[in-house]
Amino acid sequence: MSFNPEYEQIGNQLVSYYYSKFDVGDPMIRAQGLCDLYDPANSYMTFEGVQMKGQEAILQKFQSLTFRTIQRAITKSDCQPLYDGSIMVAVLGQLKTDEDPVQSYNQLFILRPNATGFFIANEIFRLVLHNN
Amino acid sequence: MSFNPEYEQIGNQLVSYYYSKFDVGDPMIRAQGLCDLYDPANSYMTFEGVQMKGQEAILQKFQSLTFRTIQRAITKSDCQPLYDGSIMVAVLGQLKTDEDPVQSYNQLFILRPNATGFFIANEIFRLVLHNN
Repeated sequence: MSFNPEYEQIGNQLVSYYYSKFDVGDPMIRAQGLCDLYDPANSYMTFEGVQMKGQEAILQKFQSLTFRTIQRAITKSDCQPLYDGSIMVAVLGQLKTDEDPVQSYNQLFILRPNATGFFIANEIFRLVLHNN
Repeated sequence: MSFNPEYEQIGNQLVSYYYSKFDVGDPMIRAQGLCDLYDPANSYMTFEGVQMKGQEAILQKFQSLTFRTIQRAITKSDCQPLYDGSIMVAVLGQLKTDEDPVQSYNQLFILRPNATGFFIANEIFRLVLHNN
């Protein structure tokens, strides 16, 4: 067991960093900003039910998102430590892209330690929609 | 790396089992039904921002919930495998207790293998509320 005692600080810091890189209108700059966060082979990302594996597939997905502007507010962020030193972060938030209506979303991250810090081993994104 | 290829089936089965035990009006029966799912010392549960650790603290929380009836519908369930054989499940759903209004919720589980199957190593529950 090696629960990281700084799980809350590290978790929230990494999510802030992630959003600072994600929330840019230029898809190339977005992908460049996020690329170091993913493992080439073993990171999983499920975006609205579609699963990708590995840095390249994940970044391709992020590059394909066509918004020009995005506004975001985090409502709640829950962090937990995992037994192996990983950190789980669950975000409940709201976002607004371009002229679209505000939408509720959930996003989960499992941050796993590596030689230089942490990378995103697992990630899930879902809009909170019940009638689609 | 030992990603479990049956992560989706196992994840959804365990969540169905969990809800079948959780969704009973008698708090004692609820706690008894769920007790085998938690590690005595190392399971984490964050319920609406309040973190508990260990089977006893988690079951006490569940026993303290005072609804008599609960109805539940799972809207989406996303499963991913973790590198160590664990399974992550993210549930987006709706629930209704007694005469209260229907509420949206998110619930996350990390299921970790043990000698007899899987236990809940990490769990987070949040109602989807943005103005509280």
